[in-house]
Amino acid sequence: MKVTPYEVEGEIDYDRLVQGFGASRLTPDLIRKIKNPPLLLRRGHFYAHRDFDKILKEKKFAIVSGRGPSENMTLGHLATFKFVKEIQDRYGCYVFIPFSDDEKFLYKDITYEEARQHCEENALDIIALGFDPKKTEFMFDLGGMKQDIYNLSIKCAKRMTFSMIKDSLGFIPSNNIGSIFYPAMQAAHILYPTVKYDLPVVVVIGIDQDILVRLSRDAAFKLGLRKPADLLSKFLPSLTGDGKMSASDPNSAIYTTDNEKTIKKKLNNAFSGGQETIEKHRKLGGNPDIDACFQYLKLFFEEDDKKLKQIEKDYRSGKLLSGELKKYTIEKAVSFLKQHQAKRKQARKNLSKFLSR
Amino acid sequence: MKVTPYEVEGEIDYDRLVQGFGASRLTPDLIRKIKNPPLLLRRGHFYAHRDFDKILKEKKFAIVSGRGPSENMTLGHLATFKFVKEIQDRYGCYVFIPFSDDEKFLYKDITYEEARQHCEENALDIIALGFDPKKTEFMFDLGGMKQDIYNLSIKCAKRMTFSMIKDSLGFIPSNNIGSIFYPAMQAAHILYPTVKYDLPVVVVIGIDQDILVRLSRDAAFKLGLRKPADLLSKFLPSLTGDGKMSASDPNSAIYTTDNEKTIKKKLNNAFSGGQETIEKHRKLGGNPDIDACFQYLKLFFEEDDKKLKQIEKDYRSGKLLSGELKKYTIEKAVSFLKQHQAKRKQARKNLSKFLSR
Repeated sequence: MKVTPYEVEGEIDYDRLVQGFGASRLTPDLIRKIKNPPLLLRRGHFYAHRDFDKILKEKKFAIVSGRGPSENMTLGHLATFKFVKEIQDRYGCYVFIPFSDDEKFLYKDITYEEARQHCEENALDIIALGFDPKKTEFMFDLGGMKQDIYNLSIKCAKRMTFSMIKDSLGFIPSNNIGSIFYPAMQAAHILYPTVKYDLPVVVVIGIDQDILVRLSRDAAFKLGLRKPADLLSKFLPSLTGDGKMSASDPNSAIYTTDNEKTIKKKLNNAFSGGQETIEKHRKLGGNPDIDACFQYLKLFFEEDDKKLKQIEKDYRSGKLLSGELKKYTIEKAVSFLKQHQAKRKQARKNLSKFLSR
Repeated sequence: MKVTPYEVEGEIDYDRLVQGFGASRLTPDLIRKIKNPPLLLRRGHFYAHRDFDKILKEKKFAIVSGRGPSENMTLGHLATFKFVKEIQDRYGCYVFIPFSDDEKFLYKDITYEEARQHCEENALDIIALGFDPKKTEFMFDLGGMKQDIYNLSIKCAKRMTFSMIKDSLGFIPSNNIGSIFYPAMQAAHILYPTVKYDLPVVVVIGIDQDILVRLSRDAAFKLGLRKPADLLSKFLPSLTGDGKMSASDPNSAIYTTDNEKTIKKKLNNAFSGGQETIEKHRKLGGNPDIDACFQYLKLFFEEDDKKLKQIEKDYRSGKLLSGELKKYTIEKAVSFLKQHQAKRKQARKNLSKFLSR
């Protein structure tokens, strides 16, 4: 197993990750304390944390959840922001979304122009989820670098050595110096609501990015600031059944801009937990735990817990066939994405309301 | 001999530096082509260059000459900006002065607030020299970071690896990641007039900083931009007679804010090239080449070439005594600094005219 912000490989042991990273499991007790827990919390996708119990005791707090802009945004990416939006709805909290166009440009083989454009396109998907523009701020590094963020990144950078970064992130001397600096910029994004608005922060992030939060917590400590809390998620499963969903592999994920035909094709071809024949399926039942469609229902489309439980039971018993499960998932997916795409179109005119002020 | 942007040690062999760095000597032929050559060119203080002959063929060009802000600005620092101002007067060229408050904060044991404050104080000295505010722009990284500069630094950073920086600047893994990134920011300062205004650039800089220009030239090449030219100076001698003038050693240099009493004391105590007794001096003569007062006249106070020659001759022959040379230098220094300090007071109200737009 290898899990870093830049590489995820092998069979993932989520328990070992939590232990290894020094985080805590989200206990049923803690989840019960959350107002009307959103789907991704109820269903164990967000499964670990640091100091989130302390955040819940605060009257006001801010969420920081970043977006590494890419050409296509997947439903997986969207699921995380939907979760963030649900927490905003329940707590009225402030949400800061740094778009790391600079990071993507520095780490990936893309042009400066592409990095800039992906930012704007991805922002539309996030706006379409219904964030409150009065309480949500997007930060585009290459399109709206704030003096406060730059200065904070320099303060953080002074406290981070190359050794620390190298050991934590596996950097080598042929890495460009922008990528080496970037953890300081990320720390600045994370600590900004605390420095600027005196708000405690919870970072909502995949467990593979955890090290960046730890580096930020260390910088916060050294700068005499409150350490950011975090909520850590598992990876979203690939449609193909192996590994992590990836925006760069169109077969592994549904994109937010996919049309009906593509959605149908992708879900019909998705990895199934059913048996090879109907007879066998009726007799032995299917395995929802590895079934891509079931996972999409569980982590995105099926809000109703009872209904999901029934589907799981029926699929496991063989009463529900793979074809039927696929059909139901496709209906849900098409319906969601049609609405989403309409909202996404409307979002463009609201973009400026979300940009750095 | 060790000469890097962060350390200068040993007996300096200026010829070997030019050769080693791959620059060219400023020839008498090239100096003759410069309109009314300023004192520091006539007297060999600026002694090497890259592509400056090409710059002289341009109708328009920009000078970039940075300031690493420090608590006290020395006459040595001022001499370089006086030179830049003289080139501006003769050619009507644009002058960009990046104040690397971020660099100083990252490299030195000073607070963020100190770095910010030194910037503003040093700026007053530079304004007092009479720069044209319509053609001169100051860039404070921590007090006016421009989106264009940040974005350009990221583009440069993508083309610079840790290996390159490490080998060029002698970095070690315990260096902070801000200092490792800084060469990209410096390259952005240098390339900005070319990117933003399509102006060829000449960097006016001490030879110890040459590597940063070479890194910028390399980045320019990789980005398809015109490479910046440079004019390279020797070091200003210390008042104490050993090594380089240093802003952090008050005995080594006259500060722009020193009062009459301090100036007198510093110059009277300065390293002398005279003999121990008047009799010996009359007989053997003094050595102006190692005499701190003579060097101040040569590099700053005595504009008149004939007069300087006479002083040199008389000092060498023993006709001019050390005490007389000191007295003359003190008169010149006090007179200059009184005027300068008056202009410096006036400068504060004009500061905003020079800041980034």
